[in-house]
Amino acid sequence: MKLLRYGPAGSEKPGLRHDDGTIRDLSAHVADIGGEVLTGAGQDMLRALDADSLPVVDGDPRLGPCVAGVGKIIAIGLNYADHAAEAGMEVPPEPVIFFKATSAICGPNDDVIIPRGSEKTDWEVELGVVIGKPASYVDEADAMDHVAGYCVVNDVSERAFQIERAGQWVKGKSADTFAPMGPWLVTRDEVPEPQNLKMWLDVDGHRYQDGSTATMVYGVRHLVSYLSQFMSLQPGDVISTGTPPGVGMGQSPQVYLRPGQEMRLGIEGLGEQRQLTRAWDG
Amino acid sequence: MKLLRYGPAGSEKPGLRHDDGTIRDLSAHVADIGGEVLTGAGQDMLRALDADSLPVVDGDPRLGPCVAGVGKIIAIGLNYADHAAEAGMEVPPEPVIFFKATSAICGPNDDVIIPRGSEKTDWEVELGVVIGKPASYVDEADAMDHVAGYCVVNDVSERAFQIERAGQWVKGKSADTFAPMGPWLVTRDEVPEPQNLKMWLDVDGHRYQDGSTATMVYGVRHLVSYLSQFMSLQPGDVISTGTPPGVGMGQSPQVYLRPGQEMRLGIEGLGEQRQLTRAWDG
Repeated sequence: MKLLRYGPAGSEKPGLRHDDGTIRDLSAHVADIGGEVLTGAGQDMLRALDADSLPVVDGDPRLGPCVAGVGKIIAIGLNYADHAAEAGMEVPPEPVIFFKATSAICGPNDDVIIPRGSEKTDWEVELGVVIGKPASYVDEADAMDHVAGYCVVNDVSERAFQIERAGQWVKGKSADTFAPMGPWLVTRDEVPEPQNLKMWLDVDGHRYQDGSTATMVYGVRHLVSYLSQFMSLQPGDVISTGTPPGVGMGQSPQVYLRPGQEMRLGIEGLGEQRQLTRAWDG
Repeated sequence: MKLLRYGPAGSEKPGLRHDDGTIRDLSAHVADIGGEVLTGAGQDMLRALDADSLPVVDGDPRLGPCVAGVGKIIAIGLNYADHAAEAGMEVPPEPVIFFKATSAICGPNDDVIIPRGSEKTDWEVELGVVIGKPASYVDEADAMDHVAGYCVVNDVSERAFQIERAGQWVKGKSADTFAPMGPWLVTRDEVPEPQNLKMWLDVDGHRYQDGSTATMVYGVRHLVSYLSQFMSLQPGDVISTGTPPGVGMGQSPQVYLRPGQEMRLGIEGLGEQRQLTRAWDG
């Protein structure tokens, strides 16, 4: 299934992307696409519905972030060897974790707002892993049972805030609109090999990132198990698994986003995002 | 007002600590003590109630975390000069920010669970600042308008996970039960001088922390303004403002928590917490 949320920001309705390309409304069946719906029981209930009989949503509505009520966004740093190299850092001996504020979450095609005073706003296409079952001290062998599905995340990052402003990356990862999520959550059964998905990101038509989850250092199975040693993972939590090479900071000379640009990014089988950049205007 | 939540974990009810020492039930007036209730309008509504006529809660119920639906816990590192010294670090030129997982939140007197494999679980009594009004790019002059109130937070920390396990402190700050919060949220009007509150923490009756918010490097007003430059603050978000000297890591030799110990901690005017430690038992 491809689960999504559509409608104005803050009042999205639950929906499903049908194989025929239409959006079907799920409001009669679930309140929202959040933790409860992402559990095994929740997914089974949705799977039992006759998708063809669900109401078609007319027009071309805005898409919201594909998961509601995200409890935490756990992001993985330097998780592609080539990206670590372009960032001038070494692949860490074990996963580097940081959080993004959940208030940074926005829809996949919403404008990305360049923060006041920012000169180094950058992009990062990432595979998002959405948790569907609570996880504490989970073995790798069982880790995938805790994954509800996958989505595209743009881990938008302000490099000066992240690196030059006194410790801890969260400072450059958490501005509003810094976490576009979607267009939809693709359930795990439809993504049999998450470690072999092409991924890309263009700015104004120039392809900066052209990678694959195949070169991820610490894969999804390991990450779920690893993270669960340090904190509990809850349904609706999102793991953003790191970015392949090609970020703006890694260009020579470095390239950063300016207002009025367009990002397009996607991951094979998970859909595409498109964001326009604009300055913060109060 | 002293706002609180009481009852079994996960099904707490909203309440108020009356001046006569009783807990009064607020269920007839609000669904929970969360972001909506913490806004100016929400507080005004509660203030208009006749506290004497609210139902008395019998017995000695468990207290839950004093805020429901916390969107993020933003913690400030090395924010007391003496604590920075005992940690072997310098006071940073601007605030160091890290996040704690919201899944770490527990009641003020719940057991603190020492994570599997932990040998360096430590304590940190901290002044928690609860946001009551959305804040983006707020000036210091206006910052306090965005504060709903204050509470005690124990920023429980696993030092090996935090410092010795590949970058970013969040790894040692986020285990379940690592953020006891409460006993109650004291509204801002009852705390006219947040920068002059005594604070303390005992383990098994030995006083390890004995400080005051007077020695905080970056005060509440500055922190709210500063943080709002990097992310939006939302009603129900909590800022944990750092800890004074006396953590276990700062002892010589270092002292860490073992199962079966008792922590007692408090802040002047904000009440006390008491936690027993135990090993994770699945």
